[in-house]
Amino acid sequence: MKKRLIVNIVSIMSFILLSQIIRADEGMWPISEIDKLDLRSKGLEITPKEIFNPGGLSLIQAIVYMGATGSFVSPDGLIITNHHVAYGAVQAVSTKENDYIKNGFLAKNRSEEIQAKGKTARITESFRDVSDEVLSVINKGMSFAERTKAIEKKIKQIVAETEKKNPGKRAEVAEMFSGKTYVLFIYTYLKDIRLVYVPPRSIGGFGGETDNWMWPRHTGDFSFMRAYVAPDGSPAEYSPKNVPFRPKRYLQVAPEGVNEGDFVFILGYPARTFRHRTSHFLAFEEEIRLPYVADWYSWQIAVMEEMGKDSRAIAIKHLSRIKGLSNTMKNYRGKLKGLKRLHLVDKKREEEKALQNFIEAEKKLKAKYGDVLEKIGKVYEEIREQAEYELILNYLRRSVNMIYFGYTAYEAAIELQKDDLERESAYMNRNFPLTKQRMELTLRNYYEPTDRVILKEMLRRAARLPENQRLASLETIFEGDNTEKAIENFIEEAYSKTNLSNYQFLMDALTKSPQELKKMNDPFIELAEALYPAYLKLKEAQRAHRGALDQLYAQLMDVKKQFIKKDFIPDANRTLRLTFGRIRGYEPADAVYYQPITTLEGVIEKTTGQEPFDTPQKILNLYRAKDFGRFEHPELKSVPVCILYDMDTIGGNSGSPVLNARGELVGINFDRAFEATINDFAWSEKYSRSIGVDIRYVLWVTQKFGEVEYLLKEMVVRQQKGFLFRIYY
Amino acid sequence: MKKRLIVNIVSIMSFILLSQIIRADEGMWPISEIDKLDLRSKGLEITPKEIFNPGGLSLIQAIVYMGATGSFVSPDGLIITNHHVAYGAVQAVSTKENDYIKNGFLAKNRSEEIQAKGKTARITESFRDVSDEVLSVINKGMSFAERTKAIEKKIKQIVAETEKKNPGKRAEVAEMFSGKTYVLFIYTYLKDIRLVYVPPRSIGGFGGETDNWMWPRHTGDFSFMRAYVAPDGSPAEYSPKNVPFRPKRYLQVAPEGVNEGDFVFILGYPARTFRHRTSHFLAFEEEIRLPYVADWYSWQIAVMEEMGKDSRAIAIKHLSRIKGLSNTMKNYRGKLKGLKRLHLVDKKREEEKALQNFIEAEKKLKAKYGDVLEKIGKVYEEIREQAEYELILNYLRRSVNMIYFGYTAYEAAIELQKDDLERESAYMNRNFPLTKQRMELTLRNYYEPTDRVILKEMLRRAARLPENQRLASLETIFEGDNTEKAIENFIEEAYSKTNLSNYQFLMDALTKSPQELKKMNDPFIELAEALYPAYLKLKEAQRAHRGALDQLYAQLMDVKKQFIKKDFIPDANRTLRLTFGRIRGYEPADAVYYQPITTLEGVIEKTTGQEPFDTPQKILNLYRAKDFGRFEHPELKSVPVCILYDMDTIGGNSGSPVLNARGELVGINFDRAFEATINDFAWSEKYSRSIGVDIRYVLWVTQKFGEVEYLLKEMVVRQQKGFLFRIYY
Repeated sequence: MKKRLIVNIVSIMSFILLSQIIRADEGMWPISEIDKLDLRSKGLEITPKEIFNPGGLSLIQAIVYMGATGSFVSPDGLIITNHHVAYGAVQAVSTKENDYIKNGFLAKNRSEEIQAKGKTARITESFRDVSDEVLSVINKGMSFAERTKAIEKKIKQIVAETEKKNPGKRAEVAEMFSGKTYVLFIYTYLKDIRLVYVPPRSIGGFGGETDNWMWPRHTGDFSFMRAYVAPDGSPAEYSPKNVPFRPKRYLQVAPEGVNEGDFVFILGYPARTFRHRTSHFLAFEEEIRLPYVADWYSWQIAVMEEMGKDSRAIAIKHLSRIKGLSNTMKNYRGKLKGLKRLHLVDKKREEEKALQNFIEAEKKLKAKYGDVLEKIGKVYEEIREQAEYELILNYLRRSVNMIYFGYTAYEAAIELQKDDLERESAYMNRNFPLTKQRMELTLRNYYEPTDRVILKEMLRRAARLPENQRLASLETIFEGDNTEKAIENFIEEAYSKTNLSNYQFLMDALTKSPQELKKMNDPFIELAEALYPAYLKLKEAQRAHRGALDQLYAQLMDVKKQFIKKDFIPDANRTLRLTFGRIRGYEPADAVYYQPITTLEGVIEKTTGQEPFDTPQKILNLYRAKDFGRFEHPELKSVPVCILYDMDTIGGNSGSPVLNARGELVGINFDRAFEATINDFAWSEKYSRSIGVDIRYVLWVTQKFGEVEYLLKEMVVRQQKGFLFRIYY
Repeated sequence: MKKRLIVNIVSIMSFILLSQIIRADEGMWPISEIDKLDLRSKGLEITPKEIFNPGGLSLIQAIVYMGATGSFVSPDGLIITNHHVAYGAVQAVSTKENDYIKNGFLAKNRSEEIQAKGKTARITESFRDVSDEVLSVINKGMSFAERTKAIEKKIKQIVAETEKKNPGKRAEVAEMFSGKTYVLFIYTYLKDIRLVYVPPRSIGGFGGETDNWMWPRHTGDFSFMRAYVAPDGSPAEYSPKNVPFRPKRYLQVAPEGVNEGDFVFILGYPARTFRHRTSHFLAFEEEIRLPYVADWYSWQIAVMEEMGKDSRAIAIKHLSRIKGLSNTMKNYRGKLKGLKRLHLVDKKREEEKALQNFIEAEKKLKAKYGDVLEKIGKVYEEIREQAEYELILNYLRRSVNMIYFGYTAYEAAIELQKDDLERESAYMNRNFPLTKQRMELTLRNYYEPTDRVILKEMLRRAARLPENQRLASLETIFEGDNTEKAIENFIEEAYSKTNLSNYQFLMDALTKSPQELKKMNDPFIELAEALYPAYLKLKEAQRAHRGALDQLYAQLMDVKKQFIKKDFIPDANRTLRLTFGRIRGYEPADAVYYQPITTLEGVIEKTTGQEPFDTPQKILNLYRAKDFGRFEHPELKSVPVCILYDMDTIGGNSGSPVLNARGELVGINFDRAFEATINDFAWSEKYSRSIGVDIRYVLWVTQKFGEVEYLLKEMVVRQQKGFLFRIYY
């Protein structure tokens, strides 16, 4: 296998016999595979080379990853993505006096654009298969944990070498199939991203949590940002001297939009799917993890809403976190509904039974694969047994800001002593700045009373763990007859003594050795030290499970391939994928049909005047005046707002461009229908529908509501229908 | 005008120029008007005479009123109606050991049929216009209250005379247009009604309050009862010697059901509509009455659910009342939504403004009608001012069982001293047995702790009334500094002392003179005596308002007729009406379409195993086995469950037969879609949709689930399609 850094499309996943499994609407196809899809026969009017052209210009150069997906829509680095992708950055610069969430943000010219702190835009430069290299470090004598560690280390080495050879770029290795295939991606990271136009929440977040994960939808979930680089064109941190980035390619906008039945495709960075996992995994999700997390998030949301109910300033501190938790919570509830409704665990079990019969029917297969499923089941049994213990350890660090700070400081002190490649990923030189930045963002919205309540509940739960899972390090806190009182005392003392909410103190702590850290005498750093062995032990156990599963899943794929005589698309893993399909409605329930295009009528219909259904008066006026401009849908006689399609998307696809047959922008993907939250686990022809904001609504709001004429001029909005797609420069 | 007791179809409402206002789907047409509708051109395949044939046989003879509507479906008096119409009677015979609500009721043969206590079935024998007679008692010098009293008295006289001339029949006078038109109906009341087959609540009430007033619906809301008469064929109270009633006509069943777009019509007894009322009335409803009552009912429901949560026996006592209150509460919430969404008050105001302009443009009109609207507005102003006082007085008697008992006993003692015709309607000889029966039913479900809590809340509200509306008779209860404590003391003493929850004591009380009653020394009778003057005064005020409005509305109708140059259908008033339309879906919201036929798939989809979505295992088994028999829908490939149509229905239409173009039974009407709760106030082409259970589901459940083969044999289920409707004997 060649080891050059240019794209090597032939070798990657060449074992996939694509021709056998093409289905119209399913699949997040690795970008290297699309020339095998015969997209022209499906409705594509441009050549696949215009989408992906290794070594030349193509649409993928207009696509960026920024936590979700975005795309360039002008030669001057203008990026269009979702409102909810910009949300955190907008919230960070919002104050009580200058509430950009509420009022929206508009830079009247480039000098008014403000930094979107924490945002970066990642461009995929090239990729190649490195499976052989990665797996070369494995030998039979290794334990599962050793195996995982060896792979992790090898990957770090490949990344380090690659980045050394490509100054200014970042390398990442993606696992395509567990324990089987690994692909090295080389990325450019643009680090100076600025806010350009973000509509008010009452448009960009219209419907809020009520409508989230729902169709019919009426959310104008779009925003404009701009990428900047140093005057020499190289990626650089924010500086007033920076200049707009000139992308190699940007998207053309199709103001006439789409209609029901039209061919569409999406390029984006879907995050994670689990479609190749077994019934044991799904049963664990359905019975244990999803319900626990959904309930825990729902509990936290209630706490934060209560905290913010009398003060807009306190409410703003919680907004972004509530949004994130609600999003996951509702998604999990949707998944639980889907798991039940589609009987996924039962179906998987039946498939596995059939596979087992196939294996047992042949001696050779039986010898090699006979116990693979059973062994996988046993690993999940172990995971299940320690599930609550693991969830509590996990959420102690994730949900309690002070433990997050204290633990990160303590772990940093230990990890920074090691060689870079030996460190936990978050503390490697290449990642540590980002780790610090995340802490800074969390600190900005830190609100002590909330943190206290959440820690209290977590400690209560820890105190209720069964005898054999108790966290020894917490027992000193729980000492005495009255655990409740003991917890309260600990919290009172710790929060009054800690200095970690002081920005300088926190940043200082991140530079210390373990010995120096000890002298800082902070109760949460001390708690972190006490908990540390438990985390280490847990991590070891996770590595062992992961190592075992990697190997077992690789075997499972092998035999499954023989059984069903076809190949699979790898699960989504934040690498560039293409999905295609049609604008299409669905039947969410008996006797109910959802049409695939919503209109401004629905916005008006839903408007109550109360958040989250508080449409701005100006929109109401435009509606009354029927001032729809060129964006009126010819049959619906109103401005289309959102579109629905049967493409295969997942988290990470947020902000992805929805493109028509000519590769022109017709919408921005931002969500899935409630029934499609199940996409993580399975594709459903009946229910898998994703949601985008219609480009006509984007343009109408930008022009008529925002009156941001310069943006419409900057974007290449095609003036005449039928003018075919071409590469502009 | 002839005064014979045979039907006089020519004269009744002959002022209505029907030809001008026929619209396809609107209107609850008085049965006498249907020959003017040209139903044949709309899709009817039989002649209007086959529906209504004065002096001869016709479909209306198969229709009965029993609180809602029912219809005969066999020569042996078999009645089909809704599950929720039988509910109260089923509940009354249910016990913890023998829970017919939960398990359903099935008489394996006629000897097992049990009495549906309190149920009667009313058959319309004939009717005639008596407007001239009624209005002959009015003269110009009368006050509004005197006017109302005079009309009430005259009506009682007409009824008495008519009943004297027609032994065994009951006469009733219905007001068709306020203060304008009155029709005398002669009815036969069948008094021995028995339960035959009632499916379990998990079918007949599937979806419960969650699905109530909702489409898509999956409720098997049907039941079978049977009417019995004395061996000589005359109506008689329950007796084992009674024999099945032989109706003059019964309906034929069309087992192939209907399809989208099919012509259908309904015969039934719609209760009340208010489509001719002014904006003042609607504003009063929207702003005052509907929200107050919805909140009050919702409060009571919460109390009753709390009371019953630990004991099935106590829960059963509250079931029927909760059901009734929830039903009204959700209906009112739907109405409030509709009033807002359709801007009904504003629309009425605009209509009235146009009418006022029309009136003022002509001197003669102005002189006669110039202040009609203003005067109507003033009456509603007065009603508005005393609204809360009136609501509290009203619900003291209606919501608190003990006050209901005490007050009825006290009022009976006074009324029974008077000549029969002078009495309040409830105490006239013809009605008093029914009054007692209602009390008996209430007593059966009486639960003291609930009654105490409800009285407490009512007294609290009364204590908060403004100074000028205080109920003098309650002030003694509230005496002292601590009203709360005073209320509690009163309640404690009154409930421990009262004997009204003793059946014999209560029935005794209903036979006493006021003097004898006093000696019974019951605190709730004493409270009734104290409150009595307030009720009398209120009644007088209501009569005055009613008298004023009757006259004013009559004037309004006159001038409105001149203005819009067409006539109106009278508001529904529990008299026999026909409505026609088509099986038809609708769009409840932007991008959502509801199809008009639901299927068994939807039942399965909704089934959670928890009430109210706890489908019986046998249904799940039949579904899995695809044992649909002859009832599978050819395109939907499943058993249809409910149907939706654009006919004009209202409460009272429950249980009405849905008939196809040949007058055959294809469904049983039982509800409206949420958006159609507004039917009381206005017809909406877009939203007015009503819901019936599909005859295929009725027959499938009866055959496959209930295995009640004899019922299918007893009903005339047509075996061959295309066999046209005919009169059977």
